[in-house]
Amino acid sequence: MYISMSRLRLPVAQVPELLEAFRNRAGLVDTAAGFVDLEVWHSDRDPGEVIMVSRWRRRDAFTRYMKSDDHKVSHARITPELKAVISLERLDHLHTYDVVAT
Amino acid sequence: MYISMSRLRLPVAQVPELLEAFRNRAGLVDTAAGFVDLEVWHSDRDPGEVIMVSRWRRRDAFTRYMKSDDHKVSHARITPELKAVISLERLDHLHTYDVVAT
Repeated sequence: MYISMSRLRLPVAQVPELLEAFRNRAGLVDTAAGFVDLEVWHSDRDPGEVIMVSRWRRRDAFTRYMKSDDHKVSHARITPELKAVISLERLDHLHTYDVVAT
Repeated sequence: MYISMSRLRLPVAQVPELLEAFRNRAGLVDTAAGFVDLEVWHSDRDPGEVIMVSRWRRRDAFTRYMKSDDHKVSHARITPELKAVISLERLDHLHTYDVVAT
C-alpha cells in the first residue's frame, strides 16, 4: 500500500471553507484504479494546518491519477480565492510512504 | 475520529530493526478501548523517516492509553540501543488531528 500526504497551511479564517470544499468534493478520485481511501485531518494544536492523506494500492496508481483529467477537474473546483491563501508547508507538501506494518 | 502521528528519525542502517520491531509488536494497543488501527509508514524519499499513525474513536481513548501500563510494556520491548538512535523530528514528533472528511 502507498500513502500520499499533503500538508497544507492557510489562514485560520479560511479553514472552514477548505474543509467544506473537501466535504463537498466531486469524488472523482473514488473511482480511480488503485484508489483505497482519502482522509482530511485538521490539527488540534495548530488550527491553520490541514493534512490530506490518500491511500493507494500501489505507487503507480497514485502517479497515474495525478496526471489524469479527473485530478485536474477536482482541483479546478477550488476557488482561486481559496487557492491563493493555501501554501505548501515546508517540504512536507507532498510526502509519500510505503505502509510497512499494521 | 482522532489521529496521533509520531514522526521518527533514525539512521538508515537501523530502520530495518525498527520496522521489524513494529511487525513483531506485542499488539497490546489492539485491545485498548477506542482504538481503531495503527499503521507504520516508511518514507520513500527520506529513508531515515518512519511515521507511526494510530487512529482512535475519540481523543480521550488515546490519552487514556498513553497513560496505561500496556503502553509502558509496549515501549519497554524496544531495546535501549534502538531507542538511543531514534530522535524526534522537529515538533512533528506527536501531532494529533481530527478527521474532518473522508
